Amino acid sequence: MRTGIWLMGARGSVATTSIVGALALRAGLTGPTGCVTELPELRGPALPAFADLVLGGHDVVATPLIKRAEALATAGVLPGRLVDALAGELAEVERALRPAPAGGTQADRAGAVERDLTDFRDRHGLDRVVVVNVCATEPAAVPHPAHADLVALRAALAGPDEVLPPSSLYAYAAFTAGCPYVDFTPSTGARLPALAALAAERGLPYAGHDGKTGETLVKSVLAPMFAMRHLAVRSWSGVNLLGGGDGANLADPAANAAKVASKQRVLGETLGYVPQGDTRIDHVEELGDFKTAWDLVTFAGFLGTGMRMEFTWHGCDSALAAPLVLDLARLTAAAHAAGRRGPLRELAFFFKDPLDAPTHSLAEQWALLRDLVAGLHRGGADGQPR
Amino acid sequence: MRTGIWLMGARGSVATTSIVGALALRAGLTGPTGCVTELPELRGPALPAFADLVLGGHDVVATPLIKRAEALATAGVLPGRLVDALAGELAEVERALRPAPAGGTQADRAGAVERDLTDFRDRHGLDRVVVVNVCATEPAAVPHPAHADLVALRAALAGPDEVLPPSSLYAYAAFTAGCPYVDFTPSTGARLPALAALAAERGLPYAGHDGKTGETLVKSVLAPMFAMRHLAVRSWSGVNLLGGGDGANLADPAANAAKVASKQRVLGETLGYVPQGDTRIDHVEELGDFKTAWDLVTFAGFLGTGMRMEFTWHGCDSALAAPLVLDLARLTAAAHAAGRRGPLRELAFFFKDPLDAPTHSLAEQWALLRDLVAGLHRGGADGQPR
Amino acid sequence: MRTGIWLMGARGSVATTSIVGALALRAGLTGPTGCVTELPELRGPALPAFADLVLGGHDVVATPLIKRAEALATAGVLPGRLVDALAGELAEVERALRPAPAGGTQADRAGAVERDLTDFRDRHGLDRVVVVNVCATEPAAVPHPAHADLVALRAALAGPDEVLPPSSLYAYAAFTAGCPYVDFTPSTGARLPALAALAAERGLPYAGHDGKTGETLVKSVLAPMFAMRHLAVRSWSGVNLLGGGDGANLADPAANAAKVASKQRVLGETLGYVPQGDTRIDHVEELGDFKTAWDLVTFAGFLGTGMRMEFTWHGCDSALAAPLVLDLARLTAAAHAAGRRGPLRELAFFFKDPLDAPTHSLAEQWALLRDLVAGLHRGGADGQPR
Amino acid sequence: MRTGIWLMGARGSVATTSIVGALALRAGLTGPTGCVTELPELRGPALPAFADLVLGGHDVVATPLIKRAEALATAGVLPGRLVDALAGELAEVERALRPAPAGGTQADRAGAVERDLTDFRDRHGLDRVVVVNVCATEPAAVPHPAHADLVALRAALAGPDEVLPPSSLYAYAAFTAGCPYVDFTPSTGARLPALAALAAERGLPYAGHDGKTGETLVKSVLAPMFAMRHLAVRSWSGVNLLGGGDGANLADPAANAAKVASKQRVLGETLGYVPQGDTRIDHVEELGDFKTAWDLVTFAGFLGTGMRMEFTWHGCDSALAAPLVLDLARLTAAAHAAGRRGPLRELAFFFKDPLDAPTHSLAEQWALLRDLVAGLHRGGADGQPR
Repeated sequence: MRTGIWLMGARGSVATTSIVGALALRAGLTGPTGCVTELPELRGPALPAFADLVLGGHDVVATPLIKRAEALATAGVLPGRLVDALAGELAEVERALRPAPAGGTQADRAGAVERDLTDFRDRHGLDRVVVVNVCATEPAAVPHPAHADLVALRAALAGPDEVLPPSSLYAYAAFTAGCPYVDFTPSTGARLPALAALAAERGLPYAGHDGKTGETLVKSVLAPMFAMRHLAVRSWSGVNLLGGGDGANLADPAANAAKVASKQRVLGETLGYVPQGDTRIDHVEELGDFKTAWDLVTFAGFLGTGMRMEFTWHGCDSALAAPLVLDLARLTAAAHAAGRRGPLRELAFFFKDPLDAPTHSLAEQWALLRDLVAGLHRGGADGQPR
Repeated sequence: MRTGIWLMGARGSVATTSIVGALALRAGLTGPTGCVTELPELRGPALPAFADLVLGGHDVVATPLIKRAEALATAGVLPGRLVDALAGELAEVERALRPAPAGGTQADRAGAVERDLTDFRDRHGLDRVVVVNVCATEPAAVPHPAHADLVALRAALAGPDEVLPPSSLYAYAAFTAGCPYVDFTPSTGARLPALAALAAERGLPYAGHDGKTGETLVKSVLAPMFAMRHLAVRSWSGVNLLGGGDGANLADPAANAAKVASKQRVLGETLGYVPQGDTRIDHVEELGDFKTAWDLVTFAGFLGTGMRMEFTWHGCDSALAAPLVLDLARLTAAAHAAGRRGPLRELAFFFKDPLDAPTHSLAEQWALLRDLVAGLHRGGADGQPR
Repeated sequence: MRTGIWLMGARGSVATTSIVGALALRAGLTGPTGCVTELPELRGPALPAFADLVLGGHDVVATPLIKRAEALATAGVLPGRLVDALAGELAEVERALRPAPAGGTQADRAGAVERDLTDFRDRHGLDRVVVVNVCATEPAAVPHPAHADLVALRAALAGPDEVLPPSSLYAYAAFTAGCPYVDFTPSTGARLPALAALAAERGLPYAGHDGKTGETLVKSVLAPMFAMRHLAVRSWSGVNLLGGGDGANLADPAANAAKVASKQRVLGETLGYVPQGDTRIDHVEELGDFKTAWDLVTFAGFLGTGMRMEFTWHGCDSALAAPLVLDLARLTAAAHAAGRRGPLRELAFFFKDPLDAPTHSLAEQWALLRDLVAGLHRGGADGQPR
Repeated sequence: MRTGIWLMGARGSVATTSIVGALALRAGLTGPTGCVTELPELRGPALPAFADLVLGGHDVVATPLIKRAEALATAGVLPGRLVDALAGELAEVERALRPAPAGGTQADRAGAVERDLTDFRDRHGLDRVVVVNVCATEPAAVPHPAHADLVALRAALAGPDEVLPPSSLYAYAAFTAGCPYVDFTPSTGARLPALAALAAERGLPYAGHDGKTGETLVKSVLAPMFAMRHLAVRSWSGVNLLGGGDGANLADPAANAAKVASKQRVLGETLGYVPQGDTRIDHVEELGDFKTAWDLVTFAGFLGTGMRMEFTWHGCDSALAAPLVLDLARLTAAAHAAGRRGPLRELAFFFKDPLDAPTHSLAEQWALLRDLVAGLHRGGADGQPR
């Protein structure tokens, strides 16, 4: 099952790490640490093998991939020896990257994306291409009446207005080209009624939103712990310090707001009430691709006794996100092959703000994922877990 | 279903907090924060009501309960107003406390405990009495051939040797008196083949070991998180600073070793490998009943990138343990009423080192507990979950 | 040397703690922990004794002092037994409190303050009264031409405009009444040329700004440590979580900005460069009078090796500030008695943003303070350290 | 002023980093971050220039220096580009390294060390050679009567017993060869009356003990902060997790004890009392040359209110120690040139357990150092600060 992964934002840190990692896995130069789909409970024949993955993508910048990889090696995100060893393979992926379409109407740009996707599929003889959005986070989208209706949307895209935010225009183009779509960012992506209708029309699955890589991952196990022990969380405050492109982008208040809302959602939904406190995101250039998050939780136990917990998470976002990008592409490809369509709510395990939000508890999300994958490995007419 | 709770170590901090809490709940003076059995998913008719609980116990010291409660109020563990409001009820419990039997052979002392238990049950018209060990942690027990055989054990107890450690002698006496037994400490308790045989002979359930109240509770959700994300934990080091009687006792290297082994077990069993690092327990008198634990976890992500997490837990052990003591007594009473016998492995949720260790993941332990309780509430011939 | 301390914001947490503490010290019910002027290196005859301190003040609210003290006892800031034992003395101070003047022109209000100060001094036969501002932090003052000139200021105050912010109007009234003035907050206070001229004209000393009680105190020893070791601080980020009235007030962005600028100043001035990173102040009601600050410092050592330090400070602001209020009043009174006039730069030890900023290193500030006090104890014609 | 630095333990991490750093500074390939003697307040003509430093040393192992440097580059301690650029210079230093003498009596070995030192001085035309001990920490020395008397010591060394621990035998050899001696470790070194007599006889200065690079450095500013604010420190507990050779060595309880005593001394001497709590050192191989220390401080403020502070220090010991090794060698050389003899107590700034312990406050130690260096730069007959 030859599977393409088309990365939007293909020269960014997450994408570059995903590409180097996929190539290293294919070449047997690294182990699958961080790849959830390689755990004994999940791996199996329904998922495309690393050897069957082909990578491509779009970006608005043109920095050569090898330069980006070398910069990540200098920053301690990638081992330098891997980048050196994979120079040839990286040059090959470089040839599969295309500039993000610009100019014309949104319909023109969507058409250009569709052509790039189709060319990629044809040239490499792929069974399918999964499109994954790993671009920088967008500001919240401006509402537009055409978001609710597919016919109106098609008409509006041909006009002069910017009807859709870029992440949604991409989802539109992906679905039109017959490709499943994964949104790894908090941007709008496929979360519009008109796009859901389009995915249904084309029989395509999609997944999202906002990869859960650090502080929120920890929250999604600690919050259920407090709930299961009937401890009353009084406040939960967090601060995220991060450098790199994502940090600079999130310093923009509009993007920040989207991300912060996504990060606090787990608390209200897991605890059944919203404790005091906020989550902050601050840009500290010098931290580079590493992120430090600090959270303070105050809680009451029996007879009201006050207690507290704090944690610090020093993670490398790209190294945490990249294997999940590969996991999501493999899972979405297998779901597509099995005939699944619509939102893949069983992939909530991977997201801060999962589609249809079946649960925010990591352990329950794990059970959903395990059952989905078991169903895929068993195969069957519709690929649904049974 | 009138249920007695007989506390070994009845004048200690955990026991005193359990007693004040049970009285406060019965009087409607506090809410059930920290009581797992009062969560909507678990509460129900099979569990004895707080109004039906009667408290008693043994202790080697004679400090009046009210003095211990006042000291805990001064230390910030109990609200002073509760202690004042419950002075009458505390005096009533005081009258149900007995000195721990001393002198004579171990058989003599076991006999005295049985008589105290029987008197307590008869005087208060109780359906059953659950014995809970909340004494200070013992050193590891000295092996003895009679531990393996009930007949040999009965013979040996009548001799001059100290055949059983106190926690096990208590379990022996409890079972002989027809009482279920819960070990909230890491001491040996019922974990001897001869005692398992005795419980089987008398048709009694038992539970243990070592209440999971702080650092290990957090470990039991974080370790599965790392495992589910396929992240490689390279080291996990912890230090526990605690004052109070438990701290002083654990400063004794023999007791410390038992506790530390219990605390690290969760890692090896959840991760499938043992990371580097140790857990330390140090006594710092000034911290009193509050405990501070600090853990450092270093781990590798995709392509070997090194990352780290640390957490600090500032908890009040007595306030965390006391509601679990009540939970365990209620659950064990209900299991006994339903005809359960032998080790209650479904209570692993409450313990650092659960009997039969079905799993160390808190989420999976929760599922076991929920299923057990659902079975108890449904009733049925044998009360086994189905 | 009978000395009055007149507190602006006399019913706030800091003032109430100062009052209870002063009464407890006078009554011998507590020791001088936290009182810098009681260290062996500083104490001596030039400072007014605790027995010679008389307390009074203004506030815009009217909650009885005893109620405020009881609330602080419940919150764990004050020992309840002290509040009980000092009920009579607190009632006496209550009688010395006055409502903050309202209505009329600013000149009218300044006149009312002067009369209250004069009455207080006369009624209690005081040698002098030191006015200390412990009100909530004001927004940054609106500039006005009269701030630069005393004659113009007097004229403008008689008009209808709000020429001075409240802290500065108070400084104006204090100086006019012949009283030294201490600003414990980051508000403008005496920091206007016209007020400096007034203090000079009346031969009065003054001190400020912004008591250094927690995170900034720690910064003022850590930043010099990095500087003395020639380590390059790359980023210094901080977050302050606090409840209580001060927290709510600082949630107002305008007040927050003043405070944050005050908190970061120590870094640039000690290190000689400004590292990346910001300081945040967030209001978390549930934390009450306790404050949690977390700081992350990243730094480079030899050959550019990156390292990091983080600290968490869990302090009770009122308990940290109150003894400094008493210290500052005693020191300013002694300086006044010795004939000092103008800004007391040797008191930089106590402030985040000291007048004339002689240094931001705590150790150097300590040396300045020690020399000042030695000079005061030696006495002499002008009381200047020599 | 051509100055030799002779490193005992010349192939260890600290020594290798010192060598690479000195070569890089000489070649203008790096800046002086971490070098205290390059601060504007201290630098000047009395100190030997980096261009005038020549490096040599002994080691018991024979791993080539370039291999050690490459390993440190892989571990993130040294920049790989520096190691590559300095390969030629490293080979030159390699030729100046000698195996640590073995076999024969201690007098024989001391004689061999003296010959190596003299050869080194002669071959390179050096004005003087400073010997610096950067070996692994020794267990506490076994007392011997000859430690108290130089004549007895000389006699005993010629016998078959191991009279002196290695660090002290080295100090003996250094002094005999006319070389000043610096002990960067907690080992005994020159701290024996017979060796003090020898240094006096030969007119040599010496310095020590135990370079202050991480947790203790922080303690030496925080403890004075608590003292200056009259806050009562109730407990101070610390844990140090470290890998590498030093970590493995300190896992040995005997060496650990020496180090721990050295680390806690600052508290008692700065505060005037010893708070509760201990310092732990644990070996965690995976942490490599980086060390994580965590400290918890509980303290009481005004009226006894309890508060707490904790800090985590993630430092690279070699990168912190190496510039101090160069600083100490330069300062000791300059002191020797100026005629100083005996213990250099003004270098307390650099040590956990300074000779003659003039003070444990970093700020006061800084003032002593600054005055010493000013005296050296001014020159004069005896080079003493005046």
